[in-house]
Amino acid sequence: MQIGMIGLGRMGSNMVRRLTRDSHECVVYDVNTDAVQKLVSQDVIGTTSLEDMVNRLTKPRKIWLMIPAVLVDRLLAQLIPFLEQDDIVIDGGNSHYHDDIRRGNELKQQGIHYLDVGTSGGIKGLEHGYCLMIGGEKSIVQQLTPIFSTLAPGIDAAPPTPGRQPSISTAEQGYFHCGPHGAGHFVKMVHNGIEYGVMAAYAEGLNILHHANIGKRTHDMDAETTPLRNPEYYQYDLDLGEIAEVWRRGSVVRSWLLDLTASALVSDPDLDKFSGRVSDSGEGRWTLEAAIDEAVPVPVLSAALYERFSSRGDADFANKLLSAMRHEFGGHIEKKT
Amino acid sequence: MQIGMIGLGRMGSNMVRRLTRDSHECVVYDVNTDAVQKLVSQDVIGTTSLEDMVNRLTKPRKIWLMIPAVLVDRLLAQLIPFLEQDDIVIDGGNSHYHDDIRRGNELKQQGIHYLDVGTSGGIKGLEHGYCLMIGGEKSIVQQLTPIFSTLAPGIDAAPPTPGRQPSISTAEQGYFHCGPHGAGHFVKMVHNGIEYGVMAAYAEGLNILHHANIGKRTHDMDAETTPLRNPEYYQYDLDLGEIAEVWRRGSVVRSWLLDLTASALVSDPDLDKFSGRVSDSGEGRWTLEAAIDEAVPVPVLSAALYERFSSRGDADFANKLLSAMRHEFGGHIEKKT
Amino acid sequence: MQIGMIGLGRMGSNMVRRLTRDSHECVVYDVNTDAVQKLVSQDVIGTTSLEDMVNRLTKPRKIWLMIPAVLVDRLLAQLIPFLEQDDIVIDGGNSHYHDDIRRGNELKQQGIHYLDVGTSGGIKGLEHGYCLMIGGEKSIVQQLTPIFSTLAPGIDAAPPTPGRQPSISTAEQGYFHCGPHGAGHFVKMVHNGIEYGVMAAYAEGLNILHHANIGKRTHDMDAETTPLRNPEYYQYDLDLGEIAEVWRRGSVVRSWLLDLTASALVSDPDLDKFSGRVSDSGEGRWTLEAAIDEAVPVPVLSAALYERFSSRGDADFANKLLSAMRHEFGGHIEKKT
Amino acid sequence: MQIGMIGLGRMGSNMVRRLTRDSHECVVYDVNTDAVQKLVSQDVIGTTSLEDMVNRLTKPRKIWLMIPAVLVDRLLAQLIPFLEQDDIVIDGGNSHYHDDIRRGNELKQQGIHYLDVGTSGGIKGLEHGYCLMIGGEKSIVQQLTPIFSTLAPGIDAAPPTPGRQPSISTAEQGYFHCGPHGAGHFVKMVHNGIEYGVMAAYAEGLNILHHANIGKRTHDMDAETTPLRNPEYYQYDLDLGEIAEVWRRGSVVRSWLLDLTASALVSDPDLDKFSGRVSDSGEGRWTLEAAIDEAVPVPVLSAALYERFSSRGDADFANKLLSAMRHEFGGHIEKKT
Repeated sequence: MQIGMIGLGRMGSNMVRRLTRDSHECVVYDVNTDAVQKLVSQDVIGTTSLEDMVNRLTKPRKIWLMIPAVLVDRLLAQLIPFLEQDDIVIDGGNSHYHDDIRRGNELKQQGIHYLDVGTSGGIKGLEHGYCLMIGGEKSIVQQLTPIFSTLAPGIDAAPPTPGRQPSISTAEQGYFHCGPHGAGHFVKMVHNGIEYGVMAAYAEGLNILHHANIGKRTHDMDAETTPLRNPEYYQYDLDLGEIAEVWRRGSVVRSWLLDLTASALVSDPDLDKFSGRVSDSGEGRWTLEAAIDEAVPVPVLSAALYERFSSRGDADFANKLLSAMRHEFGGHIEKKT
Repeated sequence: MQIGMIGLGRMGSNMVRRLTRDSHECVVYDVNTDAVQKLVSQDVIGTTSLEDMVNRLTKPRKIWLMIPAVLVDRLLAQLIPFLEQDDIVIDGGNSHYHDDIRRGNELKQQGIHYLDVGTSGGIKGLEHGYCLMIGGEKSIVQQLTPIFSTLAPGIDAAPPTPGRQPSISTAEQGYFHCGPHGAGHFVKMVHNGIEYGVMAAYAEGLNILHHANIGKRTHDMDAETTPLRNPEYYQYDLDLGEIAEVWRRGSVVRSWLLDLTASALVSDPDLDKFSGRVSDSGEGRWTLEAAIDEAVPVPVLSAALYERFSSRGDADFANKLLSAMRHEFGGHIEKKT
Repeated sequence: MQIGMIGLGRMGSNMVRRLTRDSHECVVYDVNTDAVQKLVSQDVIGTTSLEDMVNRLTKPRKIWLMIPAVLVDRLLAQLIPFLEQDDIVIDGGNSHYHDDIRRGNELKQQGIHYLDVGTSGGIKGLEHGYCLMIGGEKSIVQQLTPIFSTLAPGIDAAPPTPGRQPSISTAEQGYFHCGPHGAGHFVKMVHNGIEYGVMAAYAEGLNILHHANIGKRTHDMDAETTPLRNPEYYQYDLDLGEIAEVWRRGSVVRSWLLDLTASALVSDPDLDKFSGRVSDSGEGRWTLEAAIDEAVPVPVLSAALYERFSSRGDADFANKLLSAMRHEFGGHIEKKT
Repeated sequence: MQIGMIGLGRMGSNMVRRLTRDSHECVVYDVNTDAVQKLVSQDVIGTTSLEDMVNRLTKPRKIWLMIPAVLVDRLLAQLIPFLEQDDIVIDGGNSHYHDDIRRGNELKQQGIHYLDVGTSGGIKGLEHGYCLMIGGEKSIVQQLTPIFSTLAPGIDAAPPTPGRQPSISTAEQGYFHCGPHGAGHFVKMVHNGIEYGVMAAYAEGLNILHHANIGKRTHDMDAETTPLRNPEYYQYDLDLGEIAEVWRRGSVVRSWLLDLTASALVSDPDLDKFSGRVSDSGEGRWTLEAAIDEAVPVPVLSAALYERFSSRGDADFANKLLSAMRHEFGGHIEKKT
């Protein structure tokens, strides 16, 4: 099937490669012309502008956007004038699902169809395939089946779930129509919220293992320092990389994120390459906002996000205030590093 | 290799089966004689008392305990009088690592060796193998290699970690000598702490998906109820089982716990079989205590544990007090269900 | 000064009483005519409709709304047609500050002024006065000075803050102009977010004291129950009411909420009057949303809100899923109450 | 009444002053002879050694320790040999209540009595009095009544609690016999756990107010940065000192800690004197451990403690691991400050 791809970053370019391998024809565009040139080949047609791209696509056109969420509305404003009734636009990035609902309704008035496709898989997606969470009209989703089934990992990527009827849905192929406009990004948003929580669970646990030798160190003895009551219990020098490795086999916490953890620790056991400023790209925040609207308690997902905020210094003023209060009531002087 | 197994519950009996399949000789004991009878066969020797078991084992004896942690000291008090120098006792249950350190030191004075082996894998361990986290003397651990390598899942249970030198340790076989006495259960304890966190991340996220249709319901309009400002954003009826299924392939959050989630939702989509009283068996608590001693922040692991406490009603008095304060300052009357 | 008051519930009616005592003239309205009749007196003029009220007020009119936030827009739609240029509407309820910004801008186009006044003090406000956090145009705020200074507690309500210059602002009178439209309710929103956190801190702490005799109870001994390792440390039968009472004098945690806690425990030491379903009226949620937008970590304020959600059963599905996962991997059967 | 005081730091020396003012005779000792000299006067007898102090006290002696908890056992080992049957030792510091139970039992065997007295009030205690939470034998507590009633703030320090019978206990004087050995420090421990939670609630809330102008700043637009969707809602420059000031009068969150907050912000509105490394002196940790033993959920108190840990860099390794995972799955490069 022919498809247009706008946005050839880490994700978009690999998706083009995976599609091309499976004999789809990709017409590609990126503001960065180098990114376009790197992909052009027998089955990948490079274009020089949005208009150029649109002109090279057979009607009804199918155009997949793989760009930062913050740029989607701007790009749509430029793209839509070139499109015609029955064309299909797919947003595969990390848009807020509120925007999907709005866009789906706006575009419908011009006869243009819109799908929101939460796309998970990261840089390994070329090899493993992408997990696709899809929102929009059912008939439009079905039109894209050839594309989705190529991008998705396929049935062999995991053992069958006992008792599940394969005919229920395409989920075991690795793509799934979740519901109407926004449902795909809603599910992807929560996926990322969970991702933050799972990552934090490993990070906290491994941090405990990392400090398991704290009983070997000497500690200050003053009223500002909590004494370690039982230093004999904290005498372990643990090999975190090998512990992650052993957990990969047979343990209850085995997972792909654990595989990645083991991998990161092989090359850099103390993680010295990193400073510990952890970014968040928004879905974790929106997940919390949805939970709050729904009155669903999410202490774990919240804590995971807040750790990221704190890692970037956003708790500093609060912490200064705590030191200030301690000084006020107890005359406590802040300890220096 | 010959080994004695005390405790033939869900874990112990399957471990005996896995060992027997691989031609080890198991001498077994349980207070429940039915559990013994079920296992007796050409390669499994049933015994009727601790003394009987000890007598049937070749010296130096290797005896694996697979019993509730709370019973281990009591059982050791009965067992030790029958043992001799160079015998080896392995605690494969969920003992507190403080107890391992104490026991290791006490038994050493009688020339008896002690290993603590955190054992993960649950009821699927018979088929998949058990992840083994081992603490104790190196030479003793090495003596048990044949047993560990049979119980563990083996190298094929996961793809190799890129760049890792296989010679570093046995971790990629699925068993690993973590350190001296207690190190095995320390690592298993943190494993379980992480497990609680990962489980909670999925549970919270799926709960958000479960309530994604809240905008379809009507809500009270009064000063005690927060209005839902944007009901149009919560109109999704999501199929949680299929979402778990699609995430199993290619998504960042794929894991064994997610496989189990998908499985649980196939047979019981609304989870009506469960009331939601979630037990905890101690390791999550001890994980927090270790973190607190080490001054390692663990908000995610803590939140996960506290959700379990709350699920069992342990927040009730605190909640009553909140309602009482609201009544005192605002005259607010508690809303009924 | 003359002022109109719409909404004669617990808050509004007491505010009218406090204003009248200080010789202000109140023109009042409520859909509940009984509420109006109860207040009518020499200085309180009852009215029978919004139009009637507007007609009885001297221009430029000053009308204070003290109604549930969810009803404000509806009421304004009815009220505004009767108003004229230079009239002033004050929203003293718990509106979302986004709505204040919108309303302030909309009304300005008709020459009508809008103030948002976060009002704290609860049912004791009649006696103690109300803490007023004000947003809107400076000149309009100043016009209302006589009203604000009557409603507020006044300078004697707390000892002076050392070093503070009294001339900086009116804050030490108990009312303060925080900033432009929405600033008053923004500050009130965060005030309530803090309130939830402070309340939860007391509730959690007192719950620990409440369970300090747990070592006296017998506990199940099985693999689903964590044994209490040191029952000898939990043998205290503590008198929570007297502990709250002693903390009221000289302790670091003394506060008005603690006064109320002591009061609640006098009449109902086990809080049997309450079931523990804790309402939230929205500000705590909005506080979190603001924090998330600002990337400010708020684990304490979040935890406090989520405890309220959980108290109302909103964690149930998540908890069922945890039990389901435990059943899948470990064959664990849920314990019943 | 005559009393010995060991430890003349910020707390101990002021307690001597408050006792002396009320005509008690204080016999004082500190390893720091300057601290002793500063206090010596008509009613304060300085001593040069523990033995000297003991010799100057009338039997049965009453000796109050006001020293860092970590030094108490060491000091008792030196002091006890000089004591005799019926002497009373009072630990007024922040000992772990487990130690109190042990010490109470050990000293009893020598006929010496032990009280644990949690003492709250900080550097303002000289003026306001100290809140005393007392554990130990009832008859011994009663012997010390003259001392406790002088140290405590007295009945006028707070308005009476409605409906409370004054005869129930001495709590409204500001001192209270909570229970047997350890009960005083148990209650003080939880008091401090609550203190952390209340402080964190204010700190988080004020941090939200502090960032309320974030919409005025420009932000990066890239896939690593979450865009602020509604900058128009974050345009407030708020005066935190005046907001704390206004809340002191009539608001629900008024408290002594809020008084101190207002005071700290007067002299240093941006808190530049502080770096934000927040110490903890142990009681918050022990509070969590008690809660965990009791299975009482304490998400707020935990979050408050963990924020302190994080402020001191103890989350760094966990954060590095989060960045490492993000690099592994998404190729994300850490953003620099």
